[in-house]
Amino acid sequence: MAQTEAIFSSVKITCLATEIKYKNRNDFVIVELPKGATTAGVFTKNAFAAAPVLLAKKHLAQKATGALVINAGNANAATGAQGLKDANSICEMTAELLQLEKQQILPFSTGVIGENLPMHKIELALTNLHASATQVLANSTFADFSRAIMTTDTKPKLVEYQAQIKGEKVSFIGVTKGAGMISPNMATTLTFVFTDAKIEQADLQNYLQSAIEPTLNSISIDADTSTNDSCTLTALGEGAHIGANNKEFQTALTETLKRLALMLVEDGEGATKLIHILVKGAKTPAEAKATGFSIANSPLVKTAFFASDPNWGRLIMAIGKTPELEDLDISKVNVFLEDFQLVEKGGKSASYDEKTAAKIMQAQEINVKVELGRGVANWQVHSCDLSYDYVKINAEYRS
Amino acid sequence: MAQTEAIFSSVKITCLATEIKYKNRNDFVIVELPKGATTAGVFTKNAFAAAPVLLAKKHLAQKATGALVINAGNANAATGAQGLKDANSICEMTAELLQLEKQQILPFSTGVIGENLPMHKIELALTNLHASATQVLANSTFADFSRAIMTTDTKPKLVEYQAQIKGEKVSFIGVTKGAGMISPNMATTLTFVFTDAKIEQADLQNYLQSAIEPTLNSISIDADTSTNDSCTLTALGEGAHIGANNKEFQTALTETLKRLALMLVEDGEGATKLIHILVKGAKTPAEAKATGFSIANSPLVKTAFFASDPNWGRLIMAIGKTPELEDLDISKVNVFLEDFQLVEKGGKSASYDEKTAAKIMQAQEINVKVELGRGVANWQVHSCDLSYDYVKINAEYRS
Repeated sequence: MAQTEAIFSSVKITCLATEIKYKNRNDFVIVELPKGATTAGVFTKNAFAAAPVLLAKKHLAQKATGALVINAGNANAATGAQGLKDANSICEMTAELLQLEKQQILPFSTGVIGENLPMHKIELALTNLHASATQVLANSTFADFSRAIMTTDTKPKLVEYQAQIKGEKVSFIGVTKGAGMISPNMATTLTFVFTDAKIEQADLQNYLQSAIEPTLNSISIDADTSTNDSCTLTALGEGAHIGANNKEFQTALTETLKRLALMLVEDGEGATKLIHILVKGAKTPAEAKATGFSIANSPLVKTAFFASDPNWGRLIMAIGKTPELEDLDISKVNVFLEDFQLVEKGGKSASYDEKTAAKIMQAQEINVKVELGRGVANWQVHSCDLSYDYVKINAEYRS
Repeated sequence: MAQTEAIFSSVKITCLATEIKYKNRNDFVIVELPKGATTAGVFTKNAFAAAPVLLAKKHLAQKATGALVINAGNANAATGAQGLKDANSICEMTAELLQLEKQQILPFSTGVIGENLPMHKIELALTNLHASATQVLANSTFADFSRAIMTTDTKPKLVEYQAQIKGEKVSFIGVTKGAGMISPNMATTLTFVFTDAKIEQADLQNYLQSAIEPTLNSISIDADTSTNDSCTLTALGEGAHIGANNKEFQTALTETLKRLALMLVEDGEGATKLIHILVKGAKTPAEAKATGFSIANSPLVKTAFFASDPNWGRLIMAIGKTPELEDLDISKVNVFLEDFQLVEKGGKSASYDEKTAAKIMQAQEINVKVELGRGVANWQVHSCDLSYDYVKINAEYRS
């Protein structure tokens, strides 16, 4: 960690406790980027995109980004004109503090939907910060950052990754949060990734878009898409210069985002098991992905995994209900749990044995492989089980 | 009841206890139809449609139906060639018993997926029946029928309905079953409806298709589509003669199916609340329906209802994630809980009051109304909440 913090020491992180919702913890983060850094972003497709999402998209298109500002505990979503005014005001105050223009600030919020931000608390915290200035500013680490953005998460999520690209070392550090309302569409929850490389903004956006599909857009906890999903990628411009279409960089970025995505699923609300679903032999990647999500989002499949019940009938039900597979030749379908074959040519495998299957289901991490036998396209999605605790957490949250 | 049983006395029902899965209860039903009856059917779109579904569709196309034969406890789905052989054998035995051709028999199964039927038990029960013949045959009522097809249902589901059509009384009686794996696509679980009217088979099929969309195809318990969904409509041919495109008949049939559909949702696995979701002001009925299902299937919305938490943020999240609404103007969106406005022009209603909303959420039956403000199309879907018991039932079922 110390080593990576040193590489990213030009990123100045300030964590504050503003008591927006939580007591005795940081809930507000200012991330000042070095001059020359480029930033790319992808955002939720939910029609009720939150005020900070609308503003971040606008600011990203207007100016080179100078800082990110993030709060947890309140999503500032479905808050209308007041919500936009509040998000704008946070950008103005942060810009003044850092001596930047407000269009250089990207705002992010996560938490309860439909409540106005308690602006007096935020204003007070930022005014105090302004008064004390240099002692307090930039006093935080990436680990602090990852803790300050948590909501129903049970643990902070931080990934460090390094790759050799054309003989030069390129480093990545990323933080993310999220535990429910996770079925991203373009991005998930709040995820912030940094690399020391130097990359043009347009290229950076392309790298991020390509990395999102097989990572954050391939996980599901509960099939619900948040109003605040955002993911940014910042290139500090201090390391190796990476041009367009660099496959090694794309691979390294995708790997970094995949590790963050898996941390989200593993910490899914009430989750006791991490489930990887690989769909092979589809006609198109989209068809493979749809099949994977049909399994990943099925409450009956998810409760069977919770119970460690090798109920393969529910797996084939979920495969069969995929709208894209209406013309599926089921006699070509095979399903495996790890290397153990459950389904052979559309029916129970000749070698099926309930005890062996039940034993594999006990694991905390399980690989499901589906062979559709109708093409060469593959896709992998990642999901978790559905437990009593998912119901408990979501029946009690907010009340 | 006595009166309706008398109207439908030409339908000869025989319930048997074959111990396919359950002990000490009936689990096998033979329904002999009067000569001259016409039957229409709609079936699951799941690619893993069960053997009896495949055979019922085939037989329905070949001959006028003489009898329905139904078992509970085993779905005979994903059972390959053996499954088809077993379903065929049940049709042959039933045909012999009733002196019909096997193509006149429509078979139905519901229960666990992926296990072969215990044919020796079924053969034994039918052989005994054949030996004892007249005393035992046709000894059952529609109420017995509704009980014999139950699986995880907590109560039998039977509907009687009468309408005046062109001055003549037309009667309906229907039974259904289902408590989980309920997100029908063309039909749901097993539903059997009978009318005393006389209707040509082709017309009957049209009436059934039209009635399915706003009823069985507009409910969801868990977004999972069964491999065995089937719904038949039989016209006994003893009452009023109904031609094509009779609106009064269509209305009466739709009302009968709607009542059966609501009984399914009300008895959804672990359900404590029945939720009606009316979406108004969509561009198309399909868009309104998609929005309704986005709400109906959201685990976060469902757990909020379980907790009686008026968490309208989750409602607008679910509206906003509907793919059809990517260009939604949220400033036109209103959401109501009964007559109480939660959301006004996309944000919290000025008259919102948490206590009043929480009180409305306590009810066992709740109406949600969404106004999208972008067209004139409406759709209503019906759902239930997500409770600890859903997880319990599905984590324990089969094990």
